[in-house]
Amino acid sequence: REPKAVTARGRRLACCSYGALKAWLPILSWLPRYRLTWLKMDLIAGVTVGLTVVPQALAYAEVAGLPVQYGLYSAFVGGFVYCVFGTSKDVTLGPTAIMSLLCSYYVDRDPVFAVLLTFLCGVIQTSMAILRLGFLLDFISYPVIKGFTSAAAITIGFGQLKNLLGLQNISQQFFLQVYDTFLLYDRTWSLFGPAVRNALVVICATCLSYSFEVYGHHLFTITGQTSAGLPPFQAPPFSETTPNGTVISFNEIVLVSGQSASLVTPIQNDYRIDGNQELFAIGLTNIMGSFVSAYPVTGSFGRTAVNSQTGVCTPAGGVVTSVIVLLSLAFLMPVFYYIPKASLAAVIICAVTPMFDYRVIAKLWRVKKPDLLPFLATFLLSFWQVQYGIVAGVVVSLGMLLYDVARPQLKVRDHGVLVVELDSGLRFPAMQYLSQMLFSKALTASSHRSVVLDCCHVSGVDYTVVDELRDLLRQFQQRGEVLIFTGLSNSVLEVLLEAELPGLKHVESVEAALQAVSGTPSYN
Amino acid sequence: REPKAVTARGRRLACCSYGALKAWLPILSWLPRYRLTWLKMDLIAGVTVGLTVVPQALAYAEVAGLPVQYGLYSAFVGGFVYCVFGTSKDVTLGPTAIMSLLCSYYVDRDPVFAVLLTFLCGVIQTSMAILRLGFLLDFISYPVIKGFTSAAAITIGFGQLKNLLGLQNISQQFFLQVYDTFLLYDRTWSLFGPAVRNALVVICATCLSYSFEVYGHHLFTITGQTSAGLPPFQAPPFSETTPNGTVISFNEIVLVSGQSASLVTPIQNDYRIDGNQELFAIGLTNIMGSFVSAYPVTGSFGRTAVNSQTGVCTPAGGVVTSVIVLLSLAFLMPVFYYIPKASLAAVIICAVTPMFDYRVIAKLWRVKKPDLLPFLATFLLSFWQVQYGIVAGVVVSLGMLLYDVARPQLKVRDHGVLVVELDSGLRFPAMQYLSQMLFSKALTASSHRSVVLDCCHVSGVDYTVVDELRDLLRQFQQRGEVLIFTGLSNSVLEVLLEAELPGLKHVESVEAALQAVSGTPSYN
Repeated sequence: REPKAVTARGRRLACCSYGALKAWLPILSWLPRYRLTWLKMDLIAGVTVGLTVVPQALAYAEVAGLPVQYGLYSAFVGGFVYCVFGTSKDVTLGPTAIMSLLCSYYVDRDPVFAVLLTFLCGVIQTSMAILRLGFLLDFISYPVIKGFTSAAAITIGFGQLKNLLGLQNISQQFFLQVYDTFLLYDRTWSLFGPAVRNALVVICATCLSYSFEVYGHHLFTITGQTSAGLPPFQAPPFSETTPNGTVISFNEIVLVSGQSASLVTPIQNDYRIDGNQELFAIGLTNIMGSFVSAYPVTGSFGRTAVNSQTGVCTPAGGVVTSVIVLLSLAFLMPVFYYIPKASLAAVIICAVTPMFDYRVIAKLWRVKKPDLLPFLATFLLSFWQVQYGIVAGVVVSLGMLLYDVARPQLKVRDHGVLVVELDSGLRFPAMQYLSQMLFSKALTASSHRSVVLDCCHVSGVDYTVVDELRDLLRQFQQRGEVLIFTGLSNSVLEVLLEAELPGLKHVESVEAALQAVSGTPSYN
Repeated sequence: REPKAVTARGRRLACCSYGALKAWLPILSWLPRYRLTWLKMDLIAGVTVGLTVVPQALAYAEVAGLPVQYGLYSAFVGGFVYCVFGTSKDVTLGPTAIMSLLCSYYVDRDPVFAVLLTFLCGVIQTSMAILRLGFLLDFISYPVIKGFTSAAAITIGFGQLKNLLGLQNISQQFFLQVYDTFLLYDRTWSLFGPAVRNALVVICATCLSYSFEVYGHHLFTITGQTSAGLPPFQAPPFSETTPNGTVISFNEIVLVSGQSASLVTPIQNDYRIDGNQELFAIGLTNIMGSFVSAYPVTGSFGRTAVNSQTGVCTPAGGVVTSVIVLLSLAFLMPVFYYIPKASLAAVIICAVTPMFDYRVIAKLWRVKKPDLLPFLATFLLSFWQVQYGIVAGVVVSLGMLLYDVARPQLKVRDHGVLVVELDSGLRFPAMQYLSQMLFSKALTASSHRSVVLDCCHVSGVDYTVVDELRDLLRQFQQRGEVLIFTGLSNSVLEVLLEAELPGLKHVESVEAALQAVSGTPSYN
């Protein structure tokens, strides 16, 4: 997770200035001061990411249940859009394993649905960004993200075993060959960096496969049927004729895709994206992608890391990557015919293995045990469907958050007078609890006591709190006792004064409060 | 809203002791020390509330769309149950205006559905109490309660105008008579206290109506058709035959009633009930009520106030009230035949008028303007359906709460080194925001600065926060700057140490931090 600060500074400026324009078009911040030394780094990084993305795109299309070329259709728009609208130099947008998995649930092997899903996702994401609703994504916590990526990694990985193993009997041997090739490569060629190993595996396997085919041996299940050339530029399809001739109307498609899109939209890859501008860039990429038959894309964690490690300097690296994808589409599609499916499966398994992070369980256990709860909820339910897992995880972590708001820690010290310190804020869900606690500790039937309420950690109150405090003050007065506040911040004090609470007493410190109370007659 | 402390003390004791038994059966706390002087007060209060509840119960049944006797069926179980299980001396359970309105939406004038709704509400409420889920009700804030009671008051009040005005032409005069009677009574008999005016109005009007009927004049729309006597004791009906002979199965009824019950359940009257024990008492009242054909009950704000003002000493007053209701059922039902509907309408309008509190808008405006938002959302949507209003209000107030959690106030002071003070807690939704803020203020491309993060108001952190802090520390280190924490509480510090954050620096005070940083080389 690299910085997101290329233009964050510009965001604070007024709405209609050049600064605001820069915030919407971050390219204005870095292009004017672009240096030639950066170009070299951007070229190297762009090519490296390009070599990573082409085999991944082919493989992910397989995961999404679409013809392989759709992976490449989805892989080139992001580079151009992100170059203009993105705020981080490292992030690369394109097909990802998780998005492909989600896509496979919804599109049912029909590219028409995939493309419409892309369009609707884009519209929802762009709207959220324009309405500044990106903060909603902050409610997806780290344990939830880890839970669903781990589960998705297992689901996708095991899904690929059929491609790796499920060949005809004669070719079971081949799995071992691929695996050996792969291991051999992994040990020998690590000089080349892990970034290009995908490309090498696929190239070697394709050459092997091609030579076998030329000599008439059909050893491998190969990709077959690919459409050559760039995708047509056309509006996303708004109606569809199924193979048996039924016409599915626009409304029906929108109904299905809309439901899917609203679930798919918030799902980013295994890191949380930063703010509305990123969401805007992703949304725009999806909208434009739907015109070139792309399926939904998002930021790729793996390729972003590759990009960063290769030393990319600006988002211009993404343009280089996109050009490589376009060249592959234009010239290499006939070759892709010979790619063995098993080698694509190997690419996928390589990509998803680091997503399964078993150590996170130990970390959560050691650092914060309660956070295992949203993790496990997400992880287990994600095997049912990833989006149910995420919804469950978000609900659980919000529930835990709200429980803490509703039941703040109270430190109670007894100085004859009771000193109660609120450990955190005081908002409406906590008020009933606080007042009941004060009743049971200070206003029991058998004996009364005055209370000093230390509010130094309270940063704001709402009307429910004010109203309940009024009631509390009355109850204390009725029994001849004092409820005295200390450490009120100015903003809180203002609200309480505005509410004209009868009997409101406030002093600076707990000591002053104790003195004030001891001077008051008590009817104990 | 009077104290809830009769036995709150007992609640803190261990689970299997006599104290725990007392917490479940609060009667054990007050019955052994019952005094004869209390009995007098309880008798007076019980009778007064009894005189209030009988006409109200008849009237509310009308609101619920049920025959009048169902109001009385619902009014006597609560007194007995609450006497044993209730924690407050004042609260009276029984039919209420709002619950009757909600009931009218669901039961469609069919008592079978009403009784089953009662049973299911009871089961849900009791389960929530046993599972200690009563805290969920704390999330209904004061503006939401005010919003829906105000809207319900208007809905119910206007609904009764048809009974007050919608008589035949000849009897329009009568409305004025009732109104005049009512006003006259209100001015002359205020000596008797407002508590018994309902009874007096209904009695006078009934006498009037009876004498007209005896002389053959049918001036008033009268109640008519009442079943005399106590309700049969029977299990709630689990199937139903409609007038045209269709049998509705248990499953279907449960499906409809269950949906209604889960919406009706959390709706208490216009005050929030206190904790699980109260919920338990209400749930038990509803379960037992369903065996005597009651419709759902809850705490009545108006009668609770009457009870408190008449000086009730223990929940035993409720038993007296229940006996009066039972006596009315046994002996007075034939008289109820002659009650003019207009006088019941007057009773209802009297009961709901104080529920519409227009001053709350001015109060909210003065004290806390943002709280107008949940109020208005609830108020306006409640005219569509009360439960939608409540759901909307809860969603809005939770949204406001969560937004504050996600976007805590940051106080930034510039001492060369940046001192950032978190105004409230730090939980996962706020972390991305904080780290982006630190980036844009301290780690811009053009200049770097060290940061002192003052966490004195932070009472707890979760794993997402820890993980993001690890990333932040790394970013600061990479740029040769320092991120130093001050004011960490012990529990937070423990978590951070357990996570073994590389480069974690922590000192007691901001001053010490500034000194520590100024001793560090800066590569600015």
